[in-house]
Amino acid sequence: MAVEVITIKDKGDSVDTFFDPESVAIIGASNSPFNLGATICRTLHEFSSFDGRVYAVNRKGEAVHGCEGFVSVTDIPGDVDLAVIITPADVVPFFVKQCGEKGIGHIVIESAGFSEGGESGRTMQKEIDETAREQGIRIMGPNCLGVLNARNQFCCFYGIFEDSFEAFMSEPGTVSYIIQSGGVVAVILESLVKDVVKVNKAISIGNKSDVDEADMIEYLDRDDTTEVIGMYLENIQQGRKFLDAARGVRKPILAFKVGRTDEGALAAQSHTAGMANNDAIFEGVCRQAGIIRVNSISELHSLPKIFTSMPPLRGPRIAVFTNSGAFGGITADLLVDAGLEMARLSPETQEKLSRTGQIFNVSNPIDLGPALSMQTFMDIFDILLSSDEVDGLLPIPSLWHPMIIDAIGELVKKCHHYRKPAAIYTPNAVYRTVSYRNEYQVPLFESPEEAVRALQVSYQHYLYSLRKDAESYPVCNGESAWNGKLHQGVA
Amino acid sequence: MAVEVITIKDKGDSVDTFFDPESVAIIGASNSPFNLGATICRTLHEFSSFDGRVYAVNRKGEAVHGCEGFVSVTDIPGDVDLAVIITPADVVPFFVKQCGEKGIGHIVIESAGFSEGGESGRTMQKEIDETAREQGIRIMGPNCLGVLNARNQFCCFYGIFEDSFEAFMSEPGTVSYIIQSGGVVAVILESLVKDVVKVNKAISIGNKSDVDEADMIEYLDRDDTTEVIGMYLENIQQGRKFLDAARGVRKPILAFKVGRTDEGALAAQSHTAGMANNDAIFEGVCRQAGIIRVNSISELHSLPKIFTSMPPLRGPRIAVFTNSGAFGGITADLLVDAGLEMARLSPETQEKLSRTGQIFNVSNPIDLGPALSMQTFMDIFDILLSSDEVDGLLPIPSLWHPMIIDAIGELVKKCHHYRKPAAIYTPNAVYRTVSYRNEYQVPLFESPEEAVRALQVSYQHYLYSLRKDAESYPVCNGESAWNGKLHQGVA
Repeated sequence: MAVEVITIKDKGDSVDTFFDPESVAIIGASNSPFNLGATICRTLHEFSSFDGRVYAVNRKGEAVHGCEGFVSVTDIPGDVDLAVIITPADVVPFFVKQCGEKGIGHIVIESAGFSEGGESGRTMQKEIDETAREQGIRIMGPNCLGVLNARNQFCCFYGIFEDSFEAFMSEPGTVSYIIQSGGVVAVILESLVKDVVKVNKAISIGNKSDVDEADMIEYLDRDDTTEVIGMYLENIQQGRKFLDAARGVRKPILAFKVGRTDEGALAAQSHTAGMANNDAIFEGVCRQAGIIRVNSISELHSLPKIFTSMPPLRGPRIAVFTNSGAFGGITADLLVDAGLEMARLSPETQEKLSRTGQIFNVSNPIDLGPALSMQTFMDIFDILLSSDEVDGLLPIPSLWHPMIIDAIGELVKKCHHYRKPAAIYTPNAVYRTVSYRNEYQVPLFESPEEAVRALQVSYQHYLYSLRKDAESYPVCNGESAWNGKLHQGVA
Repeated sequence: MAVEVITIKDKGDSVDTFFDPESVAIIGASNSPFNLGATICRTLHEFSSFDGRVYAVNRKGEAVHGCEGFVSVTDIPGDVDLAVIITPADVVPFFVKQCGEKGIGHIVIESAGFSEGGESGRTMQKEIDETAREQGIRIMGPNCLGVLNARNQFCCFYGIFEDSFEAFMSEPGTVSYIIQSGGVVAVILESLVKDVVKVNKAISIGNKSDVDEADMIEYLDRDDTTEVIGMYLENIQQGRKFLDAARGVRKPILAFKVGRTDEGALAAQSHTAGMANNDAIFEGVCRQAGIIRVNSISELHSLPKIFTSMPPLRGPRIAVFTNSGAFGGITADLLVDAGLEMARLSPETQEKLSRTGQIFNVSNPIDLGPALSMQTFMDIFDILLSSDEVDGLLPIPSLWHPMIIDAIGELVKKCHHYRKPAAIYTPNAVYRTVSYRNEYQVPLFESPEEAVRALQVSYQHYLYSLRKDAESYPVCNGESAWNGKLHQGVA
């Protein structure tokens, strides 16, 4: 057994082939009505600019949506890098063996009905695992969608529509996802279509009989085009491997895990065959590994932009400014709840703010009053961002004039200049915020709660980074600065 | 002093005039650039179908946007029901006296700079209060926007744009708001434009020197066209009056209060001059009065549809069904957190579900699998809604086919037939959910969290109603059924 494990480990970074295959066989793709494999052939051949070779494998050896057809992978001339199996569960072990004969090193098994499907499923799973170990094959799945890579437009998700595909792929971004469920990934990808940060890679790992979240974290950490990693998990099977993989990563990792309650764990178990993990253990692993645990699926797509659009929050003191006084009070409550602080502005800073003109209230939260010029906005940004009393901004300007959008654009630049972040919320209906954000490509959050949460996770990641720095360069005194901060409410 | 208080109380339900004036004077409306009063004249005369008379009062006695102009309200021929004062603060006491001379019984003071603006503001406020008491005038404000009434298109909000006005007013709904801040009301009204429930009346009460949330609760309780009451509060000045007013109301009241933390209370104080109320007291009043306390501004517009579109949730047992297994686990966690329960389906019910066809998993959460016919959906709805094991539904169908929207429409009807609610979430980006909801007018929630929260508040209101029934018809045994339930986690 030990030897077989070493066989796999020796393959090193070979998971790369799942993302950049030069040749792919879709096993189970045919011209039967409602054939799911056929939708993968169509996506790759008709919608995508993917330039690898794509073959269809089916009983008749027929071509599918322009992809050359074969009865067996062993009939395909030349090498095949990756096989995608999407057939009834009971024939999957046979096809895995056939892939082994062909020398295929990577298989995505999309079929369901294995460990999550009772005793006979588990027996088949064992058979597949044995073949894979003997042949040194890496397996993704079963019960998964595999990979979507916006960089090269490789995608083996089934049932994807042309307009969705174009939307997801049109502009590769820098946030990548490791996801146990297809339904969740669709919501995330659709949401990012109208955001300032787009998807880079999405990986649906399903029952993860071999390739798991830890392998994917390591891959995405090496991947230069990934800035932020998001995860949706239903279970962790190898806690130590997960911890070790995540611990060394400096990129922000956001993780949502289902199964906080017994009912949730039970539901997840029937879905992707995980054990009902103890949630407290997961929580502990996240803290040790420096993973930001998020509270909803929507946080997985709403929060990455605070990392990709803004410098990190390096301290807890936030200056709020708004022309809707109510949101001053609302965000003050939220900031305190989040373990952050309302920055205390000195008389000198308040005096500088007064000199700008029409500000109603120069103490924090700063009440802008109804009308402000572009210059006044610029002055406020400079005064607050340059002040050593302020670590970050929470601007809540009403979009009553097109000038405000320009001011927000300038604010983003100034944030980078002063190396401090702003989480911007404009008090509008969400549909309008999404529309402004998409049109003007400014990092707007959709609610005051989301903006405060973005500052909180930015600070949490900054503190994790300090700790990881400290771990890389050990010092004599174990009580480092971040340790105290971590216990002050954030994290 | 006591006599003056009685003077006001004797006027009884006279606050109605704020909503249905036959003649209105806008004091401070002129043709100067950026004049806010002028925007009210324009709204009423040019955008609105309001059929009352509207006059402008200004130094030159000039007409404004088609509204006849006068130098003083005393010059206006005939009665004036309502004055709206929107001038610099220091001349407001003078105009209030003038209104008294004219015999005007209702004034909205939109000007700011009173109790929230320091010592001189408080002195002016006192002067106004004395005049009002002497003359028996009801005052709304100061520092407010007054009233928007979609039923008769009366609106004294300033700075409202034509397209916003048309959107807010185009289709009067059944949810009414009592709000201390203008910025908040704009977000709510804009959000309801694309929802299945629309606004009926919105009242911005500002510093509430006279008319307060309690008066408005009583008014909206009497108002036949209001089904749900939403409130945004920065402070409560008369706790007992508020409690007494809300206690007797059977309509759902949703309240958001800022100032949960010291920082939030401090910020609110500078905004609308409230005392930093003890949040625990507010919490207690809500429980005693049967008010549902909400956690965000967005809940004020997202939750009312569970009351207007669905029967109440009369028990905690929820059946979840989805074709995205992940959301089964996610919602199971959320339901448990919300004090609700995953319904336990008996073997008989599971057998009925099995007989419908292609269901992956017939225990709760029910996994629908990828494809289902309209008939299968109808069968599932009937089986679950008719089962005495289930109190409400949480359906999470993917909108992969137009048929699903039709099925959702049928579900709404069946919910009314079986007198059980469904909180429906379709796993999509929010912008797409809003668009479907608006186009097909089906009550979709925007996230699984929102759907679960809707079920929670529906059940909470049902339990409050039971208690109010019990209070109306006292029984010997003080330990009634609802009392036990209230302590099981909901509320």
